[in-house]
Amino acid sequence: MTLPASASPSVPISAPARVPFSVPGVASTADAALADRLAHAIDYKTKPPGSLGMLETLAHQVGMIQRTTSPAIDAPAILVFAGDHGVVAEGISAFPQDVTWQMVENFLAGGAAINVFAAQNGCALQVIDAGVAHDFGTRAGLTDRKIAGGTRNFAVEPAMTAEQCAQALAHGAALVDALPGNVIGFGEMGIGNTTAAAALMHKLTGIPAAACVGAGTGLGPEGVQHKGRVIEAAAARHATATAPLDVLATFGGFEIAMMAGAMLRAAERRMVLLIDGFIVTSALLVAARLQPAILDYCVFSHCSNENGHRQLLETLGGKPLLQLDLRLGEGTGSALALPLLHAAVNFLNRMATFASAQVSGKH
Amino acid sequence: MTLPASASPSVPISAPARVPFSVPGVASTADAALADRLAHAIDYKTKPPGSLGMLETLAHQVGMIQRTTSPAIDAPAILVFAGDHGVVAEGISAFPQDVTWQMVENFLAGGAAINVFAAQNGCALQVIDAGVAHDFGTRAGLTDRKIAGGTRNFAVEPAMTAEQCAQALAHGAALVDALPGNVIGFGEMGIGNTTAAAALMHKLTGIPAAACVGAGTGLGPEGVQHKGRVIEAAAARHATATAPLDVLATFGGFEIAMMAGAMLRAAERRMVLLIDGFIVTSALLVAARLQPAILDYCVFSHCSNENGHRQLLETLGGKPLLQLDLRLGEGTGSALALPLLHAAVNFLNRMATFASAQVSGKH
Repeated sequence: MTLPASASPSVPISAPARVPFSVPGVASTADAALADRLAHAIDYKTKPPGSLGMLETLAHQVGMIQRTTSPAIDAPAILVFAGDHGVVAEGISAFPQDVTWQMVENFLAGGAAINVFAAQNGCALQVIDAGVAHDFGTRAGLTDRKIAGGTRNFAVEPAMTAEQCAQALAHGAALVDALPGNVIGFGEMGIGNTTAAAALMHKLTGIPAAACVGAGTGLGPEGVQHKGRVIEAAAARHATATAPLDVLATFGGFEIAMMAGAMLRAAERRMVLLIDGFIVTSALLVAARLQPAILDYCVFSHCSNENGHRQLLETLGGKPLLQLDLRLGEGTGSALALPLLHAAVNFLNRMATFASAQVSGKH
Repeated sequence: MTLPASASPSVPISAPARVPFSVPGVASTADAALADRLAHAIDYKTKPPGSLGMLETLAHQVGMIQRTTSPAIDAPAILVFAGDHGVVAEGISAFPQDVTWQMVENFLAGGAAINVFAAQNGCALQVIDAGVAHDFGTRAGLTDRKIAGGTRNFAVEPAMTAEQCAQALAHGAALVDALPGNVIGFGEMGIGNTTAAAALMHKLTGIPAAACVGAGTGLGPEGVQHKGRVIEAAAARHATATAPLDVLATFGGFEIAMMAGAMLRAAERRMVLLIDGFIVTSALLVAARLQPAILDYCVFSHCSNENGHRQLLETLGGKPLLQLDLRLGEGTGSALALPLLHAAVNFLNRMATFASAQVSGKH
């Protein structure tokens, strides 16, 4: 059995997933009366209607999520999930697997891009070992939720067991429950994880593997082609995996599964979800196949330069705030977009109206 | 005499401008050795080379401007220049002229979008009356550099005299001399000033007027067409104005001329110039025709939704950081882009290198 291109979106939520995880309920933010009140509040600020562009859309969205015309950003946090991938045995990454744990050390030492951008923009940062192939011991600043020392090679066998996948999803949800704020940004680190993300995209959307793969940390054109062939072969091998959670368990990473679990719970709790680049968006793809209403809660921070991300965003109907040719991951796009989220909320709360400022309206 | 499409860019700097203004000298930032050192510093941060995209380009640019591999953002300020336009008599704006002074009052009261965004992003804000048709009296927070109570209607006669234009340029330069920092953002307020900006663009680039005009604060399609016809007729009437400063005096606004003068002096002082939307970019167009090297100092904060801005940016070779469908002016794009400028400088100064963090390189 092969997966028809249009089959996945219509997989019912109640499909018998073999992964033993109870999917959180995610309600749509729809509320016609509130939507009108927000639109009115935005239109009567002292500016031509619509002139703040995407910030107006964003202010409206955050108001709908928080069920108020006076939304607030409270204690934003970025969670960076790290994990290793057995598929690196297929030679699909420009960097060696050790870079995963080395970069986790860099996060803990404060030397990575995400440290710099999170600190600059007043965002808490939490680093989670979801499944790195390295023994960190007990470390200050590192949240240990290691499922295993890396997934298995999905070119040969499923990346994880159904139980491991369920455990990762549950850990993600529990991490969200411990957060004090109402905005969560997602980031990741994992050598090989653009391959896992591209496999998820290919399997869940039917888009050809060649259109899902990109350079990752720096593959050349031949490396990218090889990556595509690895995914095609694996997709054929695991053709019976079609339900979202089965696909996640078969091709995903522990960090991707943990993010998907965290996203579902965050949306259930009506938090704002800051979506980062290609890998984070692949986790959202899984979550959105389970609970389409999760998209109401998502702010797409940026469109990355990783091939496939733009098309994945289009599939999800996501309009990115930033287009800076980033392709780093770590949650850097989420951190960089945070000031725009503040700007949206701030103009709604703080700008004068035409009436209050006694400014004339249109002719 | 009509202006051929390709003539303006080659107008020599020494063209005999009738406007009595001594153009500041602006040196290119070119320095091959420093450029190499900066590229090396950026490439050896703990990230795949190039993965911070436009932020890497920006960090490099700021380093070149400040002649260092450790640039710093010091006391950024946004200057909002306000002025009125005689051409409003032609019915080219959706809002009445009184909105100019009313919005200046709104700036002084802290209720406009630029107040909110500048405060959020730690940016000083200075409001300058460059030529508003209103008597504000002496007001705290308002810098009075009023040339006159609005320009004259360029559909009938030149917008300003050569002396008024020179005065506006000189005031702009002097305002820059009084700034303590090394980053200046530009903003403006002036009912009718998209018409002036479109006329400058048309005259200095040869791009047809119809491609230079847009909705401004909210014209419908017929209004936009009318605006284009007003510009075409005025361009024909003032066909002998071809030197950049003559064009500025004939079609510009006092706020536009003051910005052009400020930009030239800021680049001479090797400051970073944050360019906002369509009107600010039209002031830069004038400045760049006088001193092309000014573009080395310009950070293009955003591409606005005002028709013409994208093509004007392309003409200047400017790649905008943000594309948020803004069309408000006031310097809002400059203020919103400021965190990205900080991010560029911060990653260069604060990120670990592969060596310092002991992270492995590529295979």
